[in-house]
Amino acid sequence: EEVAKLLALKAELGDDGPVKNFVLKTPKGTRDYGPPQMAIREGAFNKIISTFKRHGAETLDTPVFELKETLTGKYGEDSKLIYDLADQGGELLSLRYDLTVPFARFLAMNKIVSIKRYHIAKVYRRDNPAMTRGRYREFYQCDFDIAGQYDPMIPDAECIKIVAEILQSLDLGNFVVKVNHRKLLDGMFAACGVPDDKFRCICSAVDKLDKTFWNDVRSEMIDEKGLDPTAADKIGEYVQLKGGLELIDKLLQDENLNKQKLAVEGLEDLKLMLKYCDIFGILDKVSFDLSLARGLDYYTGVIYEAVLTGYSHKPNSGEGEAESVGSVAGGGRYDGLVGMFDPKNKMVPCVGVSIGIERLFAILEARAQASENKVRTTSTDVFVISAQKNMLEDRLKLCTELWNNDIRTEQSYKKNPKMLSQLQTCETEGIPLAVVIGQSEIENNIVKLRNIATREEREVPRANMVEEIIAELDKLRNQSK
Amino acid sequence: EEVAKLLALKAELGDDGPVKNFVLKTPKGTRDYGPPQMAIREGAFNKIISTFKRHGAETLDTPVFELKETLTGKYGEDSKLIYDLADQGGELLSLRYDLTVPFARFLAMNKIVSIKRYHIAKVYRRDNPAMTRGRYREFYQCDFDIAGQYDPMIPDAECIKIVAEILQSLDLGNFVVKVNHRKLLDGMFAACGVPDDKFRCICSAVDKLDKTFWNDVRSEMIDEKGLDPTAADKIGEYVQLKGGLELIDKLLQDENLNKQKLAVEGLEDLKLMLKYCDIFGILDKVSFDLSLARGLDYYTGVIYEAVLTGYSHKPNSGEGEAESVGSVAGGGRYDGLVGMFDPKNKMVPCVGVSIGIERLFAILEARAQASENKVRTTSTDVFVISAQKNMLEDRLKLCTELWNNDIRTEQSYKKNPKMLSQLQTCETEGIPLAVVIGQSEIENNIVKLRNIATREEREVPRANMVEEIIAELDKLRNQSK
Repeated sequence: EEVAKLLALKAELGDDGPVKNFVLKTPKGTRDYGPPQMAIREGAFNKIISTFKRHGAETLDTPVFELKETLTGKYGEDSKLIYDLADQGGELLSLRYDLTVPFARFLAMNKIVSIKRYHIAKVYRRDNPAMTRGRYREFYQCDFDIAGQYDPMIPDAECIKIVAEILQSLDLGNFVVKVNHRKLLDGMFAACGVPDDKFRCICSAVDKLDKTFWNDVRSEMIDEKGLDPTAADKIGEYVQLKGGLELIDKLLQDENLNKQKLAVEGLEDLKLMLKYCDIFGILDKVSFDLSLARGLDYYTGVIYEAVLTGYSHKPNSGEGEAESVGSVAGGGRYDGLVGMFDPKNKMVPCVGVSIGIERLFAILEARAQASENKVRTTSTDVFVISAQKNMLEDRLKLCTELWNNDIRTEQSYKKNPKMLSQLQTCETEGIPLAVVIGQSEIENNIVKLRNIATREEREVPRANMVEEIIAELDKLRNQSK
Repeated sequence: EEVAKLLALKAELGDDGPVKNFVLKTPKGTRDYGPPQMAIREGAFNKIISTFKRHGAETLDTPVFELKETLTGKYGEDSKLIYDLADQGGELLSLRYDLTVPFARFLAMNKIVSIKRYHIAKVYRRDNPAMTRGRYREFYQCDFDIAGQYDPMIPDAECIKIVAEILQSLDLGNFVVKVNHRKLLDGMFAACGVPDDKFRCICSAVDKLDKTFWNDVRSEMIDEKGLDPTAADKIGEYVQLKGGLELIDKLLQDENLNKQKLAVEGLEDLKLMLKYCDIFGILDKVSFDLSLARGLDYYTGVIYEAVLTGYSHKPNSGEGEAESVGSVAGGGRYDGLVGMFDPKNKMVPCVGVSIGIERLFAILEARAQASENKVRTTSTDVFVISAQKNMLEDRLKLCTELWNNDIRTEQSYKKNPKMLSQLQTCETEGIPLAVVIGQSEIENNIVKLRNIATREEREVPRANMVEEIIAELDKLRNQSK
């Protein structure tokens, strides 16, 4: 019968069963996370969520797909990377491309004018995957955003503080948070003689500077985007600049820039933000960098991007990217996005940051593989072992008692498992304690409590088993601190 | 400039801005989860995950979409409910319909022959939504499965124990876990004279008995599926039966059934499983029910379904379903599914159960709304308050010190917030402690520590602030236990 059933099931797959033409894989640019990867990922998530909560964030969740029109006109050149669902009747839907647009849609729909929220969820981009560098088509974003009409730069600086706390807690070595300002970029473009209608496409070209040499970006500006070479060369001088407060003051003196109202506003914002960063004790982590542009259309103010300097990115001319994780967090201010969804265009100013967990995870996973300490994938505390045959029911009774007392317990699913294989399970899985029973233990109404690491065993009255185990586990946990 | 920027952004949406024809909603059958809903949902998830971990489960994650062919031929009549992605070049993809098929694909792909894992993630079905009853097109499943070649019914019974622990911990009132067996159903169909090639479609008809009256199911069998009325009537007698061990023994004596090898095998399995359930102390929660069929094709052995009896389902003839949550968990044994993905058809026996969190959540949310206790949506412990103007920098310094000592802290994002509005934030959000500073506190190098509930204030030296707060919070937490 088993065989008949299997054949019947196989028949549904095709005439000759699944062997023929069957591809066993996940879709391009995606991956499974097995138990060791999940243990690492959850460890990182817990640190990130703790940080978000430390700053008072609530959380929310939105559907994985949105009406297609909700995403339309938000992502500029990147819109071509959006996954659409097939038209199967009903609404036209797309998978979310980030968590920011659904957040703005949520605020407008519920008429929320102030909130501080985090959202950790998967987003989807039909991009060219580079999986060894942690670039996928399905990946998690960990977003923190502050929406509301507040005094300048207080929430903006807190976002940088949060990124710094997260990267420090994940212990990934040195990092720097590059900052710039969309108003300064626009003012700079105006000062260099870029026509107004070319601001966004020239900004997109500048955005490629972290991956490409200036010469290539310059060619794109002139040859593809029709910019005057003089204007391009002027931009080329500015985008080389990076520094701190002293650079801001220098640029406020720059005769071309300080005629541009937008540029001055951007510089004043940045100056105030760096002052707050100084109070937060993170000024040494912040680098004002005029080459930072960020790709997305919706930014209107401060923009940021965090880079791990221990894994820095070497630009090259496109033939296979340098081995690096690139930016691990990014964000900025987007004061117009919520208004795009509001029937009366009511604005809700927002600022936020997004942590790219996949890139961090690529580093953490490589580190775990290099380490000698095996990652535990279960949290089982007790394994119930029978030393003789025909003791399944006794084991089941013990498990029931332990489970009902909230003790994480496993046993073999075999009726008559070998003593040695039960002990091996404990060692492989890293289970610290075993409860061992044999005929004589049953008769004497006791159990043996075994410490797997030390191999010490002691007898405990059956009636005291639960409390003895709880005490033993407390002791082990305190030792390992 | 702000207005110009906004207009520029609006222009991208369409000629006349977003007002025209713009629908502000989530896709049909989906919903957002705001902060209060998320707090409830996370509370439920934590209890479910604790239970899975108490039984030693690891966790894993798979992509939200699979190759379309991975899902093909697994879901029978329900395949029409699968969401396909648009063909944008490259692979043909579909959103996952459940977590079981991706799990089987993962096992085959990685040649894993034994694992105990849980997976909590969203699945997608283009079904007719009934959102007040918690039936959505996007919804979470919480799956627990045991894969491996083990002795009969030990893992199968543990799945029921897990469902019982979860439903008890969520405190949702009485429940019953209905159980049946696919082999018994097939044997029963054979005994009633159903031709072999009609087993699956007659099984699908029986599956509708929890939503429809027998007369309608009988018509479907005879009129739509061409079954002999005598056979249908025989089935009609069997599917009325429900009970416990005594019913199993009675059916083992049934002259028609006990000639069917499959039926006897199914009954023997169920008998052994109920014995283990008795040891687990949950026999009173289990009901052997011959009308339980489960819709999906891939089950091969024991099947189960948990129903909250306090929210029981009244069948009617289809015009709008009774107000009830129906089944809240279901599952069974599927020994052939992994083999469908293995190039050599190598089988990995599996059994598992899936908790439908949306239906549980509908109850928990209604209960929270009826309750007087407001759900806290943040976990902030301290709010830093300034009693006078121009103290933003002092507040920022205090926040930095508290954050750096892992104390969950917030402050106003305004430069000069009013004292009253800061205190109101504490009360609205349920923040237990405030640190209050004014000019005199700064000069004397102290802070005021205020208990929001009791309004008691005491002065604390600035240097002791962190330790005093930690002690105060410990005290408050112990009080509320």
